[in-house]
Amino acid sequence: MNIQQFLQFDAMPLLFQQGCFGLEKEGQRITANGNIANSFHPKVFGLRKIHPYIQTDFAESQLELITPVSFSISQALNWMRALHDVVNRNLEENEYLLPLSMPLFLPKENEIKEAQLEDDFEVNYRKYLSKVYGKYKQMVSGVHYNFQISEEFVNKAFLFQTEHKTLVDFKNAFYMKLANNFLRYQWILIYLLSSSITAPKEYFNNAENIPTDFVRSIRSGIYGYINHKDVQINHDNIQSYVESLEEMVNQGKLIAEKEFYSNVRLRGAKKAREFLTKGVSYVEIRLLDINPFEITGLSEKDAKFIHYFLLTMLWLDKTSKQIDVNKGLERLYKVTSEHPLSKTAFADEGKEILCTMLKMLEQIGANAEIIAITKEKLQQFDEPSKTLAGIMVNEIAKHQDYASLGVAFAKKYKENSFDKFYQLAGFTDLELSTQALIFDALTKGVAVEVLDSKANFLALTYNGKTEYVQQGNMTAHDTYIAPLIMANKVVTKKVLAKQGFNVPKSVEFCDLDQAVQAFEIFKNKPLVVKPKSTNFGLGISIFANGIENKEDFATAVKLAFKEDHEIMLEDFVKGTEYRFFVLGDETLAVLNRTPANVVGDGIHTIKQLVEIKNQEPLRGDGIHSPLKKIVLGEIENLQLKEQNLSINSIPAKDQIIYLRANSNISTGGDSIDCTDKADQFYKDLAVNITKACKANICGVDLLIEDLTKSNGNYAVVETNFNPMMMMHIFPAQGKSRRVTQNVLKMLFNDLDF
Amino acid sequence: MNIQQFLQFDAMPLLFQQGCFGLEKEGQRITANGNIANSFHPKVFGLRKIHPYIQTDFAESQLELITPVSFSISQALNWMRALHDVVNRNLEENEYLLPLSMPLFLPKENEIKEAQLEDDFEVNYRKYLSKVYGKYKQMVSGVHYNFQISEEFVNKAFLFQTEHKTLVDFKNAFYMKLANNFLRYQWILIYLLSSSITAPKEYFNNAENIPTDFVRSIRSGIYGYINHKDVQINHDNIQSYVESLEEMVNQGKLIAEKEFYSNVRLRGAKKAREFLTKGVSYVEIRLLDINPFEITGLSEKDAKFIHYFLLTMLWLDKTSKQIDVNKGLERLYKVTSEHPLSKTAFADEGKEILCTMLKMLEQIGANAEIIAITKEKLQQFDEPSKTLAGIMVNEIAKHQDYASLGVAFAKKYKENSFDKFYQLAGFTDLELSTQALIFDALTKGVAVEVLDSKANFLALTYNGKTEYVQQGNMTAHDTYIAPLIMANKVVTKKVLAKQGFNVPKSVEFCDLDQAVQAFEIFKNKPLVVKPKSTNFGLGISIFANGIENKEDFATAVKLAFKEDHEIMLEDFVKGTEYRFFVLGDETLAVLNRTPANVVGDGIHTIKQLVEIKNQEPLRGDGIHSPLKKIVLGEIENLQLKEQNLSINSIPAKDQIIYLRANSNISTGGDSIDCTDKADQFYKDLAVNITKACKANICGVDLLIEDLTKSNGNYAVVETNFNPMMMMHIFPAQGKSRRVTQNVLKMLFNDLDF
Repeated sequence: MNIQQFLQFDAMPLLFQQGCFGLEKEGQRITANGNIANSFHPKVFGLRKIHPYIQTDFAESQLELITPVSFSISQALNWMRALHDVVNRNLEENEYLLPLSMPLFLPKENEIKEAQLEDDFEVNYRKYLSKVYGKYKQMVSGVHYNFQISEEFVNKAFLFQTEHKTLVDFKNAFYMKLANNFLRYQWILIYLLSSSITAPKEYFNNAENIPTDFVRSIRSGIYGYINHKDVQINHDNIQSYVESLEEMVNQGKLIAEKEFYSNVRLRGAKKAREFLTKGVSYVEIRLLDINPFEITGLSEKDAKFIHYFLLTMLWLDKTSKQIDVNKGLERLYKVTSEHPLSKTAFADEGKEILCTMLKMLEQIGANAEIIAITKEKLQQFDEPSKTLAGIMVNEIAKHQDYASLGVAFAKKYKENSFDKFYQLAGFTDLELSTQALIFDALTKGVAVEVLDSKANFLALTYNGKTEYVQQGNMTAHDTYIAPLIMANKVVTKKVLAKQGFNVPKSVEFCDLDQAVQAFEIFKNKPLVVKPKSTNFGLGISIFANGIENKEDFATAVKLAFKEDHEIMLEDFVKGTEYRFFVLGDETLAVLNRTPANVVGDGIHTIKQLVEIKNQEPLRGDGIHSPLKKIVLGEIENLQLKEQNLSINSIPAKDQIIYLRANSNISTGGDSIDCTDKADQFYKDLAVNITKACKANICGVDLLIEDLTKSNGNYAVVETNFNPMMMMHIFPAQGKSRRVTQNVLKMLFNDLDF
Repeated sequence: MNIQQFLQFDAMPLLFQQGCFGLEKEGQRITANGNIANSFHPKVFGLRKIHPYIQTDFAESQLELITPVSFSISQALNWMRALHDVVNRNLEENEYLLPLSMPLFLPKENEIKEAQLEDDFEVNYRKYLSKVYGKYKQMVSGVHYNFQISEEFVNKAFLFQTEHKTLVDFKNAFYMKLANNFLRYQWILIYLLSSSITAPKEYFNNAENIPTDFVRSIRSGIYGYINHKDVQINHDNIQSYVESLEEMVNQGKLIAEKEFYSNVRLRGAKKAREFLTKGVSYVEIRLLDINPFEITGLSEKDAKFIHYFLLTMLWLDKTSKQIDVNKGLERLYKVTSEHPLSKTAFADEGKEILCTMLKMLEQIGANAEIIAITKEKLQQFDEPSKTLAGIMVNEIAKHQDYASLGVAFAKKYKENSFDKFYQLAGFTDLELSTQALIFDALTKGVAVEVLDSKANFLALTYNGKTEYVQQGNMTAHDTYIAPLIMANKVVTKKVLAKQGFNVPKSVEFCDLDQAVQAFEIFKNKPLVVKPKSTNFGLGISIFANGIENKEDFATAVKLAFKEDHEIMLEDFVKGTEYRFFVLGDETLAVLNRTPANVVGDGIHTIKQLVEIKNQEPLRGDGIHSPLKKIVLGEIENLQLKEQNLSINSIPAKDQIIYLRANSNISTGGDSIDCTDKADQFYKDLAVNITKACKANICGVDLLIEDLTKSNGNYAVVETNFNPMMMMHIFPAQGKSRRVTQNVLKMLFNDLDF
């Protein structure tokens, strides 16, 4: 099969570089001293039988993290980053995820718990493996790299050739070429990327000829997890492959086809025989050790290198036969046993293949990055210390021993996952509440697909049911009319007033001049000036003590008209404003938002105090951070003027200066959780207001005289669709209310939180 | 009670002029020859026991149209206009609504059917009335005018006085003053506004001294519907009023309190005694004849005059006592019997009262319009021919006789109601589909409240359940996520593709230059360029035969970017595009929209042909008309250029020139109903696509090769939330599909269409 010939056609070089990727990474849960954790698989991760992302491999302690199919390797790595955040933040305080292929210490074999799965076959299979291979070999972890080349490429390439009569034959030949050439040259990846250079003594179970020094790879060498010598599979063509595999099972040399541990597995069928009618659809590369220098176990550079290395295996003129595969295995075992700092015996072949790879990269117009990466790898044939195994030798020395290195890295990665505890690595382009929702979904095994990241639009699937979510809580569980009612303050007011709720009286204006002329009517009355339909407190001015000055009134009116073509002048009702987060029949959280403010120190000006306050780690743009930086704009200046202050005033020590009358987080306000303090009367009230607006999820803003007193005075300020969730999850003060979990529970009532 | 004293206070003159209004208008259904219709109350009007707007009065043939409480008299009249459209368009072909108080002809008494109501009391009450008064007097119709002065005025006025200790006492005294002074001077309204100047001979039932010529009012005179002389009610104060009324009932002189037929009724309680504890809350003025020169039976000028006349009754220094009421009744009977063209005996008193009224208008700062109206009325004391009764005399002469006038006007008003059959009088500021929905609601007795006319936001109530509707079909019966899915074309595509529907492939761009540079990839491919999230076909360019020229490509890309910050380049799929209107489990309508086009005549240029086509009566702005005028903009010019044409080309006779590739009605397209032609396969498909988008109502646009062939080729072009309904209700060709009725039925499943 001549791939190079296909690449002469339009668009084919581009398609050749496209494909799908998926990663799996195993890893042991360990304790603070480096021992394998003997606790059960964390309950927080829900049901293993359906969890698409977090599974156990052989042992109960051995987590397996699985990314969904991704259209780029970067995307797959992002998923892997996210899964590490999910695992690290959910692990018990004294547990860590070991970022190494070989365990640090091993318990007695009988103390190792096989994964406690519900499926009988899986349980028995693990028992069988324990017997045949011993449990220790099963405790080794690695990274699996799934790769499917663009289907469009394969379909088009099929049309450009005559050798294979059917697409199925063509696909089988195509992926067999990839697999066989990979098996022939796999040692190159071992040389460059292996890291399992040592293992605890117990691992070898008193075997003979055990390595006395570091080697390039224990995991992929003769001490790794390999089949018995008499398991013989013929790779000459798909037919011989299928038949020989079936023969091994029939002879009882393998308990099942999946017990054949090749470093590359043909994928896309449950039984090999299906390939003959369906065709191979992708390959799984299984020889990668965990790279301890990356939280994901695989660096982005290496992941890209592997992708193009696989393309090179296709690009080579020749398709390896069984005889070549055998030669490749021989070289593999030789290289695995070499010392990491020594030159490899096959450096010349390695260089030759990477030079061929560079030639291919040039011909297909690959980008500069991958060319640079490949050149770097090429260089490593002369500098073994720069290979991953070489670096490992030096790192272990730095940490005294292998176990210390393992514990240190495990702890470091867990800490890293808490650095930005309100974000989810890999999904930081989404708004925060969507990140929190995804975190909770990944934890429980709800499948997540980002349909549109700019719109924060997700498809969530659990137990066969799919639900869509935009911006964290806009779903099919709310009505179409609810946000339309809430977006229109005039309508909201009429709807609520008609149903007997207390709403402040208001007058609407469409015309700026008319509104300004109405000053005489509103003079000296406590008043709120606000746009008819905007959220986030934009354009709202509050004159709690009435307004004396026509110019200030006009400024407020103009600010409101900036946000909408219709504004409202509304009676100001006294009291403290609280945000009630309602979902269904329950108020899940009550929050007191204080307006943007600074506390004086007798030294700094208001402007300086704002700058200092804006340094707080939780403050940012309010989208990628739970709190928002304070901006000193027109409304803030007006507010200061009302207090006979300016941004250059220096407040006395402990004097609180409010910079806004409205208390939205989005205009720099602070958030204080008051859920436990609020009387049930107001919680029920908020639920009823939500129902009156035909909504299920609603942020009800109430002015309340005394939050703790039943049946007290109140007024409805506003009802908000798509209410913010971050301020409840990460309040500036008080208890966190993880309302994203309630959203998930609403979507999937069979979920268990 | 000194009202003038209250008016010295701030804001009180303004509040004095505010209030609530409600109108009721009775009217006989008649046949083309002027006879009372003997058909039953039209079934189309649903259930009389709950219909808030369309009732029957005494006779089965006597419709009673009732407006809801309105905050201005203009609004109440708008309602009355709407109800006339509803009645006129729903009446049988050979029936009309008589716009006169006195019938044209009367059948034998035993042929008159009393209203066939379900309530036993109401049926028996009507039988009693037939016995006591005779059926003929019940066949007379009038207009009732309900008026409540601003509650804020009453509440404030109460605080400005000391005479009455409780608000209830104050309200009773206040409305008694209004009622008693009205009874004293009611003859003035008769003089100015009465129109029942004649009656068919049968009406008088061979009574003695029947009028031999026209009189000012038969209805309000001694031949009108009045109580027996020995029914004596004392109006001196609320206590005497309540007691005397109860006494009349106890003595059997009245069968119930409501049999007391005063020209002003105190309202706000079921039994008069309740006034003593609750207070009177409004009054009902009952002496108005139907003004035949207005479809509503009451002109806007007269309605405003009556409002301020009632205020004058409050403003007068004196509160009339029973003795004055008696004097008023005397004068009433005298004036009713005068000839319409004669001067009235009490002209001086009339002028005095209207001069007082003018004085009041000046003092309260009333607007110029009402002052002008009042001066005009004042003038009429010297020109009886200008009073309504005077005008009637001349109009009857013009039409030969009273009956001919009645038939002519009845027919004219019915025709008028069909002039703009796609609008609803009184609600023309709303978009058309909302008008259609209101029409259907009013027909069936669903209560309608316009919460925000600019937003076309309605509250609909039926059988105690309230539903909200924006823009005709956005309701609580759709999900919040559905419009969000549909508004985002990328998401829609992913959602639909994943569920196995055929969607054309597409690529998205956020950057104009990048999109333009992609030209090489899309060159010569059939292509659609469109913004990611806009409706109405704005910014969409279609290149069905591929695109050769980079500049044209760039223009299309720029047009798309004008509408959104993200655009899509999408494979163009051949076929005819159809709009499927889906509601729930059913496709209610299928429409073929042809792109904006003109048909050549060999004479006019394309530009001229467009101007001619735009004259069609159904074409307008597409919001207040079912079809939209064609605009010759950039996209149209590009489309012509593709065909080697310009706006100055002269197409051959019968040559069809398409000015758009997209076929939206909103860009000037035509609409052809194809519902009956479409194979069930596509109807089911559209329903399933709607469900996939989690929607209930959806406009599904499908490209279909052959609409009549099951299981044929198709592609989903777009799914639309809040789909247009007018094009289905009023297609350019084919059968009308009144989908607004289905929307109502969806909201209220107990509704019967």
